Amino acid sequence: MSDTNVQSGADRPVRKRRSDGERSRNAILREAAQLATVDGLNGLSIGRLAEAVGMSKSGLFAHFGSKQELQLATIEVAGAIFSEQVLEPALVAPTGFERLRLLTEGYLRYIEAANFPGGCFFASIAAEMDTHPGPVRDIAVGFMADWLALLERTIGEAQAEGDIDPDVEPAQLAFEIEAHLLLSNALFAISAEPTPIERARRALERRFGEVATAAA
Amino acid sequence: MSDTNVQSGADRPVRKRRSDGERSRNAILREAAQLATVDGLNGLSIGRLAEAVGMSKSGLFAHFGSKQELQLATIEVAGAIFSEQVLEPALVAPTGFERLRLLTEGYLRYIEAANFPGGCFFASIAAEMDTHPGPVRDIAVGFMADWLALLERTIGEAQAEGDIDPDVEPAQLAFEIEAHLLLSNALFAISAEPTPIERARRALERRFGEVATAAA
Repeated sequence: MSDTNVQSGADRPVRKRRSDGERSRNAILREAAQLATVDGLNGLSIGRLAEAVGMSKSGLFAHFGSKQELQLATIEVAGAIFSEQVLEPALVAPTGFERLRLLTEGYLRYIEAANFPGGCFFASIAAEMDTHPGPVRDIAVGFMADWLALLERTIGEAQAEGDIDPDVEPAQLAFEIEAHLLLSNALFAISAEPTPIERARRALERRFGEVATAAA
Repeated sequence: MSDTNVQSGADRPVRKRRSDGERSRNAILREAAQLATVDGLNGLSIGRLAEAVGMSKSGLFAHFGSKQELQLATIEVAGAIFSEQVLEPALVAPTGFERLRLLTEGYLRYIEAANFPGGCFFASIAAEMDTHPGPVRDIAVGFMADWLALLERTIGEAQAEGDIDPDVEPAQLAFEIEAHLLLSNALFAISAEPTPIERARRALERRFGEVATAAA
């Protein structure tokens, strides 16, 4: 995925031409999100970010008053990229089962697009922040919970539409889906080769085939 | 799992009474492994570790000449805990399919035992180090590769013994097993409640039932 696509993604919800100041802030935060998947959100200092984007520390302080403000703004930009690439293309599909398939396929493509050097931004910060209480941890952990809840809700919708076996427990199936996505992300971050993405795709196709009703 | 068990586990391969100096080194490294799952292996400084174990920095320097030496020794001690709790109890089983079930169940119990505050030591350091080239990264990443290879080899043995469907691709099934283990570890590190462990157990039981031959 080119930087241009990511840019247009992060910008789309705003639907207006941004000022130079806003675009600059957005570019800084995209760089911060990259760095956070390598050195961690806690390793993200205004000094290191200043070096990466070629600005002065005082210039960056004008954008972000504190490390925590920088962390929260970085999460917001990474969330916009995730929405653009994973959520928005899936949630327009007319049936629950189609939305479920598109969410999982969208996530695998988002990994494959290598938006971040350390793999999925949210998997990365959830693994880092789980043991660091505070507002940043709550958002990192909340993102994973929201994603699982979205999968679970979508499975329930597909069941209500008669496409997924009603005996399947939605939270259990959501866990199984996310398991394959998370491991493909972890292995792709290590090797940058497509095998783990393909393995997740095959496992999910098999599992979707098992839970689909004859009608679906 | 009590501290005493972990100690005896790390000691077992040596099969002799350790000197005070050796025991002290082992105790320091167990503390280092705990810290590494919170602040990362790169966040592990001799200064911070000295504070955690109540020793002077110069006292610790007598044990470990450099940060990298400390990191490598910490990985070794965490590896001994993993061997003791996961590998050794499983590898004595007489059939491949039994060894496979015991490896996965052993891993789930190792997570549930909460040996480390940030969950599985090796999942934690693989997620951290994937983007930091060097010998520590190679060991962290190699551990995951060795674990997947062990699962794959054990599946092949169960196939040779006629207990797992010969049409199953061992590397694909190994991926699917590790997927559930990794997510249960990630969610247990966040919530410390047993639901994700149970979900992994249910998913694996179902999957083992699917790939088992009538003879098994």
